[in-house]
Amino acid sequence: MAGLLAATPDQAEFLVELLDHGLLIETGEPGVYGRGGGFERIREAFDRLVSRVAEPDGAEAMRFPPVLPRRHFEASGYLKSFPHLAGTIFSFEGTEQEAIEQEDVAHRHGDWSGYQRMTDLVLVPAACYPVYPAIARRGPLPPGGLAIDAGGAYVFRHEPSADPARLQMFHQREMVRLGEPETVALWRNSWRDRAEEVLTRVGLDAHPEVAADPFFGRAGRMLAANQRAQELKFELLIPIAGPEPTAVASFNYHQDHFAGTYGITMADGSPAHTACLGFGLERITLGLLRSHGLDHTRWPAAVTRQLWP
Amino acid sequence: MAGLLAATPDQAEFLVELLDHGLLIETGEPGVYGRGGGFERIREAFDRLVSRVAEPDGAEAMRFPPVLPRRHFEASGYLKSFPHLAGTIFSFEGTEQEAIEQEDVAHRHGDWSGYQRMTDLVLVPAACYPVYPAIARRGPLPPGGLAIDAGGAYVFRHEPSADPARLQMFHQREMVRLGEPETVALWRNSWRDRAEEVLTRVGLDAHPEVAADPFFGRAGRMLAANQRAQELKFELLIPIAGPEPTAVASFNYHQDHFAGTYGITMADGSPAHTACLGFGLERITLGLLRSHGLDHTRWPAAVTRQLWP
Repeated sequence: MAGLLAATPDQAEFLVELLDHGLLIETGEPGVYGRGGGFERIREAFDRLVSRVAEPDGAEAMRFPPVLPRRHFEASGYLKSFPHLAGTIFSFEGTEQEAIEQEDVAHRHGDWSGYQRMTDLVLVPAACYPVYPAIARRGPLPPGGLAIDAGGAYVFRHEPSADPARLQMFHQREMVRLGEPETVALWRNSWRDRAEEVLTRVGLDAHPEVAADPFFGRAGRMLAANQRAQELKFELLIPIAGPEPTAVASFNYHQDHFAGTYGITMADGSPAHTACLGFGLERITLGLLRSHGLDHTRWPAAVTRQLWP
Repeated sequence: MAGLLAATPDQAEFLVELLDHGLLIETGEPGVYGRGGGFERIREAFDRLVSRVAEPDGAEAMRFPPVLPRRHFEASGYLKSFPHLAGTIFSFEGTEQEAIEQEDVAHRHGDWSGYQRMTDLVLVPAACYPVYPAIARRGPLPPGGLAIDAGGAYVFRHEPSADPARLQMFHQREMVRLGEPETVALWRNSWRDRAEEVLTRVGLDAHPEVAADPFFGRAGRMLAANQRAQELKFELLIPIAGPEPTAVASFNYHQDHFAGTYGITMADGSPAHTACLGFGLERITLGLLRSHGLDHTRWPAAVTRQLWP
């Protein structure tokens, strides 16, 4: 098992409260929890609120399962930036005798990894990843590009943590914009305002920040500095638990990275630009529970009116 | 890659129609598709219809992510019955130098499996699996047991197929009953009737059948015969594409298997019995599209009234 990321006493205490109230459900693995009905009602209500705010975009709905073809993932550059966070899917393709041996070792909780072979699938690391190859298949973008609503999709990050706000599998409420550089930049700016406003409307004290991804290793420090200098990533942060505020939404401007990787062009053959926006639905739910109390039926009316209009 | 399961001409043609109409979205991997907005509206409407039919059960809502602690999975017996269908999650925990090598091999679409190590997580093979350990943690069941609504959760089956009704990742709309043997048997019988009725209400020609799981290998044939003889599994089948009808709902009576594995007992210490019911939401959506046409706005009013009341 990967090293367990520690939690602050505040975060550890919050997790215990969430488990005691049946909002999260223990599985025995850090960062992997079931969700009780109360938690889900809040998460789904915020998801629908985002859909209402997104309506003017007229985005096309696309939903993807939490697995991605390995070939697309290999081309994406993710393994360069975040090799430590990716999850790959292995499976068994052996004989009957090997199946018996594998089960025998596994049943004793021994090491049965040798019986497993890499499949053609990996876990989706960010909800926008399956969108780019799907759009590329259609040929050149129409003038003005495309807005895609990728819904609230499960994504995987291999970072076991005792902080309830750092899950190994969580829902990203994701929107993607593809088109001319100016179109994409305008869309990103409009969402930076709309995202801050929607968080404020539900009583969360959000503030924007220029940010960088948690790139791996020494080379990663340069990538992060470059990302910050070019202001390619913005986050919205809210207080949840712990001394620092937590990022609950992020905007990434990829310039022509994904378009170049998968071959997404405008009608005139020029490379498209892309940007995406993801809300971390579990983190926002946790922020709401922390700010307004663990029983959502007792939240301020101004907040519940927004979530359950 | 595992051998690709063939499709009949009828199934292959149906897949092309679904892709052409934007109901499914090609990813390049058989059995892994995105879903367009039209597909999702139908899937979500049937999901809600099941919730309305399930209301009298007063089930407790629990939702789990599509990953499961490996320790629970190892204890479950799944690897004995279905080693060929399971998916395990691997990840990278190496040095910076190894990360560079891994990315280099992966970028060339070479074999980078040697850089990946087994994690403590596997993919959820059936939506009820995370429920049993979670209930076991609570201690003995109350008299009358418990009904759990596990929602419409993504599950994984490693069986790449050209048949659109055989997906590698799909939603199971799952209900679980735990309690005294008589309680569980009554619940299962009531759902056998309700499930057939709900499929009939949306214009699907469903019929029930005693069934067996696709157990692995020669030993599996005996398990299957035993399961049939004891009538532990029932399925509801509808015509989709191909010569044979397709199972779209299944009822499994586990007797005390899961209770024994995870230690679920009644207050008097006797082992609980468990049963589950899963609707295959994508298969039902495909059945509806096949029966009523690819444009749901033109379906018979008697059907749409049930789905969008």
